[in-house]
Amino acid sequence: MTRAETARKREEHEVEFSRIVAFSDGVFAIAITLLVLGISIPKGIPADKLAHELWEEHEALLAYAISFAVIGRFWVVHHGFFSQVTAFDGRLIALNMLYLGWIVLVPFSSQVLGEYGGEMPAVVVYSVNLMGIVLIGQWMSWDARRAGLTTIDAETAREGLARSAFIIGVFLLAIVVALFDPGLAPFVWLLLFVEGRSHVVQRLSRRV
Amino acid sequence: MTRAETARKREEHEVEFSRIVAFSDGVFAIAITLLVLGISIPKGIPADKLAHELWEEHEALLAYAISFAVIGRFWVVHHGFFSQVTAFDGRLIALNMLYLGWIVLVPFSSQVLGEYGGEMPAVVVYSVNLMGIVLIGQWMSWDARRAGLTTIDAETAREGLARSAFIIGVFLLAIVVALFDPGLAPFVWLLLFVEGRSHVVQRLSRRV
Amino acid sequence: MTRAETARKREEHEVEFSRIVAFSDGVFAIAITLLVLGISIPKGIPADKLAHELWEEHEALLAYAISFAVIGRFWVVHHGFFSQVTAFDGRLIALNMLYLGWIVLVPFSSQVLGEYGGEMPAVVVYSVNLMGIVLIGQWMSWDARRAGLTTIDAETAREGLARSAFIIGVFLLAIVVALFDPGLAPFVWLLLFVEGRSHVVQRLSRRV
Amino acid sequence: MTRAETARKREEHEVEFSRIVAFSDGVFAIAITLLVLGISIPKGIPADKLAHELWEEHEALLAYAISFAVIGRFWVVHHGFFSQVTAFDGRLIALNMLYLGWIVLVPFSSQVLGEYGGEMPAVVVYSVNLMGIVLIGQWMSWDARRAGLTTIDAETAREGLARSAFIIGVFLLAIVVALFDPGLAPFVWLLLFVEGRSHVVQRLSRRV
Repeated sequence: MTRAETARKREEHEVEFSRIVAFSDGVFAIAITLLVLGISIPKGIPADKLAHELWEEHEALLAYAISFAVIGRFWVVHHGFFSQVTAFDGRLIALNMLYLGWIVLVPFSSQVLGEYGGEMPAVVVYSVNLMGIVLIGQWMSWDARRAGLTTIDAETAREGLARSAFIIGVFLLAIVVALFDPGLAPFVWLLLFVEGRSHVVQRLSRRV
Repeated sequence: MTRAETARKREEHEVEFSRIVAFSDGVFAIAITLLVLGISIPKGIPADKLAHELWEEHEALLAYAISFAVIGRFWVVHHGFFSQVTAFDGRLIALNMLYLGWIVLVPFSSQVLGEYGGEMPAVVVYSVNLMGIVLIGQWMSWDARRAGLTTIDAETAREGLARSAFIIGVFLLAIVVALFDPGLAPFVWLLLFVEGRSHVVQRLSRRV
Repeated sequence: MTRAETARKREEHEVEFSRIVAFSDGVFAIAITLLVLGISIPKGIPADKLAHELWEEHEALLAYAISFAVIGRFWVVHHGFFSQVTAFDGRLIALNMLYLGWIVLVPFSSQVLGEYGGEMPAVVVYSVNLMGIVLIGQWMSWDARRAGLTTIDAETAREGLARSAFIIGVFLLAIVVALFDPGLAPFVWLLLFVEGRSHVVQRLSRRV
Repeated sequence: MTRAETARKREEHEVEFSRIVAFSDGVFAIAITLLVLGISIPKGIPADKLAHELWEEHEALLAYAISFAVIGRFWVVHHGFFSQVTAFDGRLIALNMLYLGWIVLVPFSSQVLGEYGGEMPAVVVYSVNLMGIVLIGQWMSWDARRAGLTTIDAETAREGLARSAFIIGVFLLAIVVALFDPGLAPFVWLLLFVEGRSHVVQRLSRRV
């Protein structure tokens, strides 16, 4: 029997399917909220140095803002993917767990980035974390499509692939730029905002 | 096509809509619970100093109480807003994410307030955080109404605007008061309790 | 109009009612999980002292176990109460928030108890926290019943009152005992396990 | 009356049943996400030592990966168990709470393992934690089956028992191996991956 035949149908196992989605949402919601723990100031700062110490947190705040947007964006993508899933099996659950395992690492990578934003290793850790999420997300999506568990059509899948390739390209570029000046890497990430709207990605996806 | 036409209708996409609301609720619930991390005493205090050390936490407890009430109140408002949303699009989801991003900062601001309640920068950080939430909430509400995604009528919208203006006015006043004595700022915030019941706000909203 | 008339009926506002219950459940689940943060060992302990250091955590583990059982028990009671709520208004939501605000403090009180279990102030802080929860729970229940928002009958209400009085009596007794020997207080709390099963409470409730 | 007669039927109390499952899912989701707090680097590391310090976290990352997989796996098992529960009573709720109380300890044990992976006491703490979960899970399952609260048949129950015995055997073996070399223990755990697929377990379960 194929996986599509042995997989549990969503409409027949609505409660179980909802539990998987709700669990994923819970993990996303907690991971995004734990980001705030990356911003903190020590106890017992003298009054005249408090303003300065708070100002020093601007890098942590920037890392927080980037990571909040990033996890939020991944949540929307995850959301969209699961709205098209029509059946699930143990393998999809396992891949989803692997995916969530990389999402939960973001508060750590984000804290490293907030503390050491100008250093090469921090840029690499953060980039590897995000590229890992994109790659596993792509794997999960490709695997589910191949097994007939989703209604994603060929064109949407190709667009998703192009988008993932674009994101990974930006992160690799940022690492290369960081070799020369790590402080510039976050500016390279701004290219990501082009994604979704731009015709670049659409044109890329048509060529694939 | 207008946004109201392209937006997904709530009744046709109940599952997706619920996921957005449940995600927001999750973030609110975690942020409100993380407030407790702002209260802590060091390890290894000698027995005869423990009572004193616990007493020293009264400012952190006050900040906790204020912030719990504040997040709780924002949750009720968010709750009320989404109960009137009839359709949603990517823009509403993005604004909601931005809103949640400011909610999640409250445990940090609250911790700063609990540690340094008598200092000007702490008052400013906390005030800016809360004003940010109010402003983005107002923006989200205004944007959704303009795009025809909610059933909020003109009068309710005007009342909401008056209430937001009142809250922001109180926080600006508190910052001005804090220029002279930062310790007085939380007492200015007590004016917020007037809001909701008082005829002041209702009268203001009629004049707008 | 009375509160029962103006309150929103549960069956007509199922989604909103569910959101309140789900939010409460979320707060309970997070508070109970944060208890684990009260157990921790420092970094960099030499290998030959690790076992001893882990053993030193047995008080923190005991506080964890007590608090997990306590929050779990309050969750079951909260659960039972809300299963009998038929209508809700702003006042019930506010009282529920106040209740949750005291539940969320338990991880802090529990950490204090775990660190300083043998000291009087730790016993007082923990006892005050739990008595506060019981009192506000009783207030919420009494208020909802008086306003006609629940189907709790007179006898169940009386039993609830007797149980609350019993719990508060045990905590007051524990504080008195702690005046002589703080280390004995947790053993007084063991009396709480009598509650629920014993005929003592039932006999008490019949007399009230 | 027997427990099966007094227990509340799932189909008649769907809302309450869902609350129990949702609460459990919430606790799982938070516990699995708190694992990330076990990975952290200190503030203020000089730039040239950052890469080294991040590399030093590889043991914490390994503990994170193992524990994420472990909690995820327990969640799937819990998920499967509750999908077959047809009625619930106070005892099942209490056992589920006890079960969750041991799940929530994993972030602590995992942190100990991440810091002191090569030390005997860390291996023991982690193993005891996981064996506790398996034992209580088995107890809960056995108790529910005996009371007629689930539709689990004799064969599935026997398979579950064999699987639990296998897991506990592996952990006991790992402790014995750790007596000679604690660093080898995690490799013994790799035997767990055999479970589920292998014919060993199936053959064992047929013999029981």
